[in-house]
Amino acid sequence: MSGIPRTGIGVDVHAYDEDAGPGSVLHLAGLAWPGERPLAGHSDADVAAHAAADALLSAAGLGDLGSNFGTAEPQWAGAAGTALLAEAARRVREAGYDVGNVAVQVIGNRPRLGQRRAEAEAALSSAAGAPVAVSATTTDGLGLTGRGEGVAAIATALVVARD
Amino acid sequence: MSGIPRTGIGVDVHAYDEDAGPGSVLHLAGLAWPGERPLAGHSDADVAAHAAADALLSAAGLGDLGSNFGTAEPQWAGAAGTALLAEAARRVREAGYDVGNVAVQVIGNRPRLGQRRAEAEAALSSAAGAPVAVSATTTDGLGLTGRGEGVAAIATALVVARD
Amino acid sequence: MSGIPRTGIGVDVHAYDEDAGPGSVLHLAGLAWPGERPLAGHSDADVAAHAAADALLSAAGLGDLGSNFGTAEPQWAGAAGTALLAEAARRVREAGYDVGNVAVQVIGNRPRLGQRRAEAEAALSSAAGAPVAVSATTTDGLGLTGRGEGVAAIATALVVARD
Repeated sequence: MSGIPRTGIGVDVHAYDEDAGPGSVLHLAGLAWPGERPLAGHSDADVAAHAAADALLSAAGLGDLGSNFGTAEPQWAGAAGTALLAEAARRVREAGYDVGNVAVQVIGNRPRLGQRRAEAEAALSSAAGAPVAVSATTTDGLGLTGRGEGVAAIATALVVARD
Repeated sequence: MSGIPRTGIGVDVHAYDEDAGPGSVLHLAGLAWPGERPLAGHSDADVAAHAAADALLSAAGLGDLGSNFGTAEPQWAGAAGTALLAEAARRVREAGYDVGNVAVQVIGNRPRLGQRRAEAEAALSSAAGAPVAVSATTTDGLGLTGRGEGVAAIATALVVARD
Repeated sequence: MSGIPRTGIGVDVHAYDEDAGPGSVLHLAGLAWPGERPLAGHSDADVAAHAAADALLSAAGLGDLGSNFGTAEPQWAGAAGTALLAEAARRVREAGYDVGNVAVQVIGNRPRLGQRRAEAEAALSSAAGAPVAVSATTTDGLGLTGRGEGVAAIATALVVARD
């Protein structure tokens, strides 16, 4: 069924870093956010880039961040989210797919993405080599994001097999 | 890559309104639900219509409800969810895309959508000018919806650039 | 608009079974997981199969698990998740759609899916009669899955109307 695109899905969540030192910086949606509370993680904890990468891998049936960049490939430990997104997109293309687009929604109270949405889209689109739409929402004070425990992101992607 | 559709994603959550007066009515999935506990929000808090609108905007790379209908366009404050969905679809088409379809799942304990699913699909499809599928699920008593704190909705949409 | 695929979405959550007897077994992503804590539910509580089935029904505008396999069709009570997925895919095809693909992400602390991902994809793809990609993530200790209360799954699907 060449010609029918394939859809993929990816979710990621990271907690705010309770022990963030004065030099640590939030990384989200391909951007650094000085002055905003950082997220915790072995990597840069960029939930938007991670969700986008997982959606791409999922669309191509290539597993997930853990199976691609986990203990079997330690060179990726601590890599930036945009680096993981770029490499995920490269692997998807190497497997014979064109990337149509990715859409990622950031769910959380902080930071406010609106002012830097175009900048975030440029950073993630550059990494993926395809359009990445970035949007944001909140959860009305409910759940892990509403209580300000962390930030979530959810992404969907379309890829299509090359002829 | 004209011809490859674009996918979008949207999530929304609203809390039940603890201070709802006797005259307030739940609005969900394009319908009024007399006798059901209302959701709280500056707007009508229709999480299904909001998630659908966000998915459409996301698919077309046009931002989100906040960037489209926020403080820059105060005439939309308090607008019905179906009005926001209709206007989101209009902006997507104005940007050069046809709307393929939208699928939205309502996640919560109440109301029970099953009896009025066809009615909800008709209301949202009429607003979007394209098929909007409505489904529902629960979370086995867990999380913000399982504890009955609010209702969530998650939507995906496909749009395709006109030639 | 024949030729434009339709997208669908499905989420499912089940709690771990606090009262699981020694003979009960976790069912997840089409596989039995001896030695892992089971999930609770009237059915086999396979959140991945359920989310995949809901995404397929949603893409075709055919309602959800509740409207298809609920009290109106009691013969499906207690059916395996893979049986529901297979029947959902059959109904989608019967309604005039080809199934493009399904992508499902399992969100939870346990079990670790990585070692059996290919096996899970084979089981779910066989049930759906189409490629089902399986991936996994965690939520950094936050929310219902991070606290180890249960397991969630989220799926997206593409179907296309036959000419």
